[in-house]
Amino acid sequence: MRGEFSLIERFLAAFPRARVPVGPGDDCAVLAPTRGALCVTTDAVVEDVHFTRKGFSPEDIGHKALAVNLSDLAAMGATPRWFLCALALPRGFPERELRGLARGMSALAREHRIALVGGNFTSARELSLTLTAAGELQQAALTRAGGRPGHLLYVSGTLGEARLGLIQLQSGQRRGPAILRQRRPIPRVALGSLASRFASAGMDLSDGLAQDLGHLCEASGVGAEVELAHLPLSPAVRAVLGPEGALAGGEDYELLLAIPPDRAGAFERACARAGERVTHVGRLTRGHRRVWRGLEGRPVAPPPGFDHFTRRRPVD
Amino acid sequence: MRGEFSLIERFLAAFPRARVPVGPGDDCAVLAPTRGALCVTTDAVVEDVHFTRKGFSPEDIGHKALAVNLSDLAAMGATPRWFLCALALPRGFPERELRGLARGMSALAREHRIALVGGNFTSARELSLTLTAAGELQQAALTRAGGRPGHLLYVSGTLGEARLGLIQLQSGQRRGPAILRQRRPIPRVALGSLASRFASAGMDLSDGLAQDLGHLCEASGVGAEVELAHLPLSPAVRAVLGPEGALAGGEDYELLLAIPPDRAGAFERACARAGERVTHVGRLTRGHRRVWRGLEGRPVAPPPGFDHFTRRRPVD
Repeated sequence: MRGEFSLIERFLAAFPRARVPVGPGDDCAVLAPTRGALCVTTDAVVEDVHFTRKGFSPEDIGHKALAVNLSDLAAMGATPRWFLCALALPRGFPERELRGLARGMSALAREHRIALVGGNFTSARELSLTLTAAGELQQAALTRAGGRPGHLLYVSGTLGEARLGLIQLQSGQRRGPAILRQRRPIPRVALGSLASRFASAGMDLSDGLAQDLGHLCEASGVGAEVELAHLPLSPAVRAVLGPEGALAGGEDYELLLAIPPDRAGAFERACARAGERVTHVGRLTRGHRRVWRGLEGRPVAPPPGFDHFTRRRPVD
Repeated sequence: MRGEFSLIERFLAAFPRARVPVGPGDDCAVLAPTRGALCVTTDAVVEDVHFTRKGFSPEDIGHKALAVNLSDLAAMGATPRWFLCALALPRGFPERELRGLARGMSALAREHRIALVGGNFTSARELSLTLTAAGELQQAALTRAGGRPGHLLYVSGTLGEARLGLIQLQSGQRRGPAILRQRRPIPRVALGSLASRFASAGMDLSDGLAQDLGHLCEASGVGAEVELAHLPLSPAVRAVLGPEGALAGGEDYELLLAIPPDRAGAFERACARAGERVTHVGRLTRGHRRVWRGLEGRPVAPPPGFDHFTRRRPVD
């Protein structure tokens, strides 16, 4: 038994056997044709960029790697079906931690009934997990491009928690609800599916509302107005970051949705019935300007977005 | 325009626009349902494991990253359809080199008519490219599990070239056919599709025939006999590595195929017509033993396989 193959088997042991024509172990997985269109996404989490091995347990890392991909499926309104996991492991990576990665990933996979159908192992200087996830559409995809002037903007959950959690980790804290949101983002899969019956456009919030709203507006060819007073913020986020700080907070993995006004009531009622928290925070407008109204109703300067590539500092 | 987004646009500019319902730029790509089953694979190339930036041009790296994935599709007999590219870039990675990666990948993608439908960028300490490729099956998948005692073993092309190229790169050489095979592996996509009409089992040779034949035998529940005298070796490989060294040579990306004896003639004729070189090197047997017959017909000790994880030394 050689190194790579026993590692793969130990990793796979945490997952239920995929019910597909050919699962892990051959050159490719084989998947029966779907009825609906397929949504596919690939997203990576990298040591010292998206997590640190000091601040995150292996289970946290495994969870987060799958969660960020499921969040992309949620944003399209897709039902999760299968995923592939490419692992890059530093030499001598402990088997105990590998099993932890698998456990964290497997628990979230079971919750969303998504099957691990294949993957790859390679060595590397730093730990990274690059997953590819696929979901099936039961209806038209929810893209970023369908928003129209007058459509109402909603966000799910609360904003800025993950950024607050990152700050807390960096300052040496190890527990608390914001740190949990940083370590264990919750992909809004059920909401995405529900919202796709009502929304004209949607996306997930990975880089902060300020930056991500820009992408939705550009794709839809519209502007937007957001009321900072309406942002759903926890008391801790309000106290530490304020609304402007929450806008620039990456890794929320909440959904941003544009809803035509004549469907807003039905959308809000459906969310209430499903126990999904959504908050009306603004609306799309003609033109290309994005206006952030401060607490007194006056426009404020656009906050900077969150960009892993240039701005993120590792947490320790 | 922020760092990550302009990089993505510059990378995408090298590829033709994908003809899919939703291509790069949204949270997921959206793909119409296929008629045939889908084969999916994910494979990574990592700096100082699968390439070095000194020994490989950016075009070589981009080519190799896609080639190793196409080789997995070839092994199943699938027709390439779409792929996703997750790039991990060191900070300050030159834009010129990024365009080179895209050019090398794009040239191979055009050759095989496979569409880039999405991807991801992240920062990392070392350069790596993790691709996910999907192909469509026009017939049953060619798996590792269908081989039966008595079926004939064929390999495509020549063996050991990529290992020889690695040795040459490590010793300071920069040119030559073996180095080209190390830098620019040729995925046997057309042969895989042809072979799936004849073969009972197949796989690609990424870790050397000695090790990979073991996987096929285990999956098929059979043993095998291989005649070292029959291995297709270039004069250079024969002189430097010999048959035993060629068996342990990774990264050939040739195909290993098991053909029922009553189809062998038709298979060989079809390969000759298509200009595909295949060589009969042995046969599957009852039991689990794998016998390597030396040049005098006597069994020789099984050569070690090739395992990136424990044995590969970076090329400089």
